[in-house]
This record gives sequence, C-alpha cells and structure tokens, in this order.
Amino acid sequence: MKAAVFHQPGSPLTIEDVGISKPGPREVLVRTVAVGMCHSDLHFVDGAYPHPAPVVLGHEAAGIVEAVGSDVRTVKPGDHVVTCLSAFCGHCEHCVTGHLSLCVSPETKRGPEDEPRLTYVQKPMVQFINLSAYAEQMLVHENALVAIRKDMPLDRAALLGCAVTTGTGAVFNTAKVRPGETVAVIGCGGIGLSAINGAALAGASRIIAIDMLDSKLELAKQFGATDVVNPKNGDAVQQVIELTRGGVHHSFECIGLKQTAEQAFAMLRRGGCATVIGMIKPGTRLELDPYALLQERKIQGSFMGSNRFPVDLPNLVDFYMQGRLKLDEMISQRIRLEQINEGFDELRRGELARSVIVFDQ
Amino acid sequence: MKAAVFHQPGSPLTIEDVGISKPGPREVLVRTVAVGMCHSDLHFVDGAYPHPAPVVLGHEAAGIVEAVGSDVRTVKPGDHVVTCLSAFCGHCEHCVTGHLSLCVSPETKRGPEDEPRLTYVQKPMVQFINLSAYAEQMLVHENALVAIRKDMPLDRAALLGCAVTTGTGAVFNTAKVRPGETVAVIGCGGIGLSAINGAALAGASRIIAIDMLDSKLELAKQFGATDVVNPKNGDAVQQVIELTRGGVHHSFECIGLKQTAEQAFAMLRRGGCATVIGMIKPGTRLELDPYALLQERKIQGSFMGSNRFPVDLPNLVDFYMQGRLKLDEMISQRIRLEQINEGFDELRRGELARSVIVFDQ
Repeated sequence: MKAAVFHQPGSPLTIEDVGISKPGPREVLVRTVAVGMCHSDLHFVDGAYPHPAPVVLGHEAAGIVEAVGSDVRTVKPGDHVVTCLSAFCGHCEHCVTGHLSLCVSPETKRGPEDEPRLTYVQKPMVQFINLSAYAEQMLVHENALVAIRKDMPLDRAALLGCAVTTGTGAVFNTAKVRPGETVAVIGCGGIGLSAINGAALAGASRIIAIDMLDSKLELAKQFGATDVVNPKNGDAVQQVIELTRGGVHHSFECIGLKQTAEQAFAMLRRGGCATVIGMIKPGTRLELDPYALLQERKIQGSFMGSNRFPVDLPNLVDFYMQGRLKLDEMISQRIRLEQINEGFDELRRGELARSVIVFDQ
Repeated sequence: MKAAVFHQPGSPLTIEDVGISKPGPREVLVRTVAVGMCHSDLHFVDGAYPHPAPVVLGHEAAGIVEAVGSDVRTVKPGDHVVTCLSAFCGHCEHCVTGHLSLCVSPETKRGPEDEPRLTYVQKPMVQFINLSAYAEQMLVHENALVAIRKDMPLDRAALLGCAVTTGTGAVFNTAKVRPGETVAVIGCGGIGLSAINGAALAGASRIIAIDMLDSKLELAKQFGATDVVNPKNGDAVQQVIELTRGGVHHSFECIGLKQTAEQAFAMLRRGGCATVIGMIKPGTRLELDPYALLQERKIQGSFMGSNRFPVDLPNLVDFYMQGRLKLDEMISQRIRLEQINEGFDELRRGELARSVIVFDQ
C-alpha cells in the first residue's frame, strides 16, 4: 500500500510503498477513506516530541473494514468505522469505571517487542500509536475503533477520531457542563471549536471564544460562541470577568501554554472549574493562587475528552446528522495524500481550522 | 455578660463584662453552652491575620436559644442550636444551587457600618465573623444557626460548627468520595481527623493518615485510618504511592502549607483528585506539573466543607448518636472561659486534638 513516511524532523514526508500484515485474532484491517491532519502529528514532524523513524504518522481517521481477525466480534467487513487512539482493554480499573481514555493496559497496544504490523524497504516499522493513519490501510485492534451508521460522510467522520471527541468530550465528560452555565474557550483550532460546539450542545448560556485571530473568532461564532474576546484588545481575563460579572463557571484551555492555562484558572467565578486540554511543554509548572482555590475553584486535565468512544462517537455522528454538531465548517481544505507536506505547512501557519486527506476509493 | 476579649497580638485575652443587644427582626439570642477552640482563632490571636480589636473571637459553638426576633421562623426559645460561620442569604446563585458556603451576600453579615451588637467599656465592638462565641451569649442571624435534637450533648455538638463540618464536608460534598475509593489525609488535627472519619463513613477502602506526630497517627486510627504514614520515616508521597500501587483516588490537605498541598497533588493516581482545605499563606503560589494534570488529575479547594449546614449538621448529629461519627475522642480537654489563654497555649503546641470551653449553666 501507499503511505506517507516520516524520516526525520526538517525533512519532508515521502510517499512510499509500505507492507502491512494480515489481521491477528483481535485485529481489523481497515481501508482508510479520510484522515484529519492534527496538530499533535505536527509536534512529531517538527521534532518537538521525539518518535522512532521511519514511521507512518496520522491518528484521526475513518474508513471501511476489509478483513477481521478470528476473534473479532464488534465489526465485520464492509462496516464503516472511526479509529481512536484510546485503545482500551475493557477490564482494568479505569475501563470498568468508565474512564477508558486512562487505560494503560499493554494488551491492546503494541510495544517494540511485538511483531511489527508494517514493513518498509523490507525492514519492520513500528506503528504510530497503534494506528499509522497516513496510509491507504490501517491494521487496528478491535478496541481502537467503532462502527458508525453508513449515511455518515467519512471525511467528516474522521474528525471525530481525535479533535472533536477531545473538545466535546472535555465539555460533556470531564467538565460536565450543565445548561445555563457560562463557558470560556481559549484557542479556536479544531479542539477549541469542538469545545465551543459542545458547550452549545450542552446548553451553556454564554460561550466566550478567545483567540488572537479575528478570522478564527468569526468561525467560532458559527460553532456557537455567543461572545468573542481578542486578547489584542486588552487582558483576556479582565474581559471575561467583565462580560460575566465575576467570571465563568467553566473555562477550557485548548492551546497548551502555561500562560493560557493560568488565565483559564484566573477567569473562573467562585466555585468554577478550569479544564486544561492542551499539551503543555514538559518541565513547565503551572502556578496557582491558593486563595482562589480555597474559594472552591478547581483545575483539572482532560485527556482525549475523557472519552468512552464506543458510546460517544455514535452520539456525535447522530448530532452531526441532526445538524447540531458542525463538521463541514471545520474542514477548511480536502487534500490528497501526496499533498501532505502542504497540509503540515498550513498547520504551521495556524490560520485554517483543519485539513483532511481524502483517499481515492 | 462575660466574654473573653482579645486586645492585641502578644497580649493575653482578658475576661470582661460585655454588653449585647436585643435580637433584631431576623436575629436569635443564644446562651452559649460550649465553644471549640479552633486553629483559625489562633491565627488572629497571634497576629497572622489582622482583625480590628478589641474583639470577642470564637466561632465553633453550641447553645440554647433564649430569645428570637419578630421575623424568625426556624427556631424558638429553648431550642438547642449549633452556629456556623457560613451565614447564607438563601436566594443568590450560590445558595440556590446548593453551594451555601460560597454565599457572599451582605444581608446576613454585618459590616462596620451596621449598628454594633456588642459594647465594651461603653464603646461599640464589631462581632467576629458575625458570631463572637467566646462569650456567655451570642447574637446570631437566623441563617447562621440550625436546631438539633435535644439528646445530643452540646459540648460535642459545638465541634460540628466548624472543624467537623469542614473535614467531613470536604469528603462528602466537595470531593464526593465513593465506597471503595482510596483516600490520603495530610495533617491529623481536628479537620484532618474529621476528614478521616468522613472517609470511613463514606466507605473508602483505604484511608491513609499522614502526620509528623506518632501520637496523632494513633488517634487517627481510632477515627478510621487503615494505614498511617509518618514523613519522618521517608518521603510521604512515595510511601502513599507504594501503599496504593500507583497513588490514591483522593487526597486532602488539612494543614495549609504549599509543600503539603503540592504533595497532595503528587500522590494521586491517574484520574485522582486533591482537595485543599488548609488556609495557605497569602502570596504563595502552588506549582503543578501540567503533565500530571493531563492524566486527568484534579486539584480543588474546599471552603467550610462546601456545607449546606441546615441539612449537613443534623445528619452529623445522627451519625454521632449512631456511633458512626467520633466526637468524644476529639475533645482532649474541657476548660472554663477563664482558662482560654491556656487553651491557646495548647493549640500552639499542636499536640492535642481539641480544647472545648464549657460554660456553667
């Protein structure tokens, strides 16, 4: 099959022939239909996080099942599926209490000691978070995908695999926003826009979008923001406190910076809760005022939207089909696998919401 | 009436004749039966927090209603009552959503501009947090007390007014500990012991008490601790992580130090929640690892146990009468008002759980 291979930071990805194994007992072979280009892939391409190379990146994908292993029970060939990097074992403490995204059981993941599923120039190649989605096919554990209804367009379904689940899940599952509460979202990329859409779906009374780019704030309004704040026009924390007469019930940090995470905490009303979604640079320390904490403010992290994706993803699909979840507006361009380096250039500029790679079927 | 008057940091309190007004429309005159000596009173006596003086301190009291104002509906003369500093208005956003301890409405509080309820040497004297309980009588807003059953001993009931509500409330209301979860409590004073007792009542599977004094750890076992950790024997965080194979679901900081609050966060398992109860010095900043946060750890403050005291206090009374809440063991000595300075000396030594001042009836 064809796949985009990442060789090393600073070098463009190249389209190569890559070998893929047959499904093991609990594995599923999926023909990739669409894959979203997510900022966390860019972190690896730019070397911010290290990863063994060569490797096929990509983790936000949808496709059609081609073949299943002997023990697979939940999907069959022809099913439309979305993949999720939160592969879950289903029986550890986290899984059985509904916190699938915290599962660290090795049994659904593949380590360097496992037989590799991919080969490149006759050499074995490790998968990227057990998915490696920038490729015509994916070999995935049964517990790393979910079947969805077939009338759902797969290019939009791909976005559910990461950004939309992460943003809406932080609102629904981690923060549990309730109707009538006030919400601020810092950063209006794919995750921030999804958090805004989630807050609208959950009935938040005021949804304040915060971004440095006016074009993204305009987009945020389409996703349900009732107010917008550009920090270029004055301190974001003060603007939010004034708009809400005392601060918000919930804030969501969707960038991954110390400064914006501390702002998320500082813009809370008494009893409010800040949810940090962004990946903040290792070694950083968030500094919090204990007096603000004592007034019953909280701060928490959300990993992959605290998802229970076999339940959450079909719900998100229904929301889209009902017109309540915006996905069309999130896709700023559809490109071919061969244009993947242009897609990363777009991500670096940070002006578009999301590029989606679509494969010929 | 007789009252203990605080004049200035460094000087002993003196027992003086103090005048007290008649109840206003929504006020209640209470004959004080018992008042606990709480560490936060000591903060004022030692000048750590400033307060206008002369003043009558004390805020953890129980007594018997002597007279009520014309509009009082919830208590009548002869009722046994416990006071609570969380006077609530009953109709602000916080009150109507069940977060009484966050109410800041001025209508149940008295500011410097209000007619003073106390006089000393013919001069008006401001009440201490609307209570001033180190006195034979208290003049209290109807929404700052609750009636309890008459078979409850009032010297033990007094403790419910602050320490026990704060410690158990942090477990029941703020953290919402569930049966089978693991709990660590840092600091085994009145609040820490109450948090331990609350965790036992809530069905926590393991309750790890942490203190530098072995005598307090022995006491903690009587309150329900299943394990004890003395940081003198090695890093508390490491000991807790080893005891629980990965960290606790809930930790409670009951001292009020930056170091122990950061330890409370560091000893959490994935998805765990640290609740800070202690009052940390203003100007301090808590430093948190954002990567630990991203694994869905949380940190939150608890103020007065997120109490809804008109509901919580009668429940705590029932728990005591059923033998499920330990109060006898918390009272290390009963003293007379005249011995109040000795009580503060005991608090400074920090070796006893709690002194209670009992008045002649």
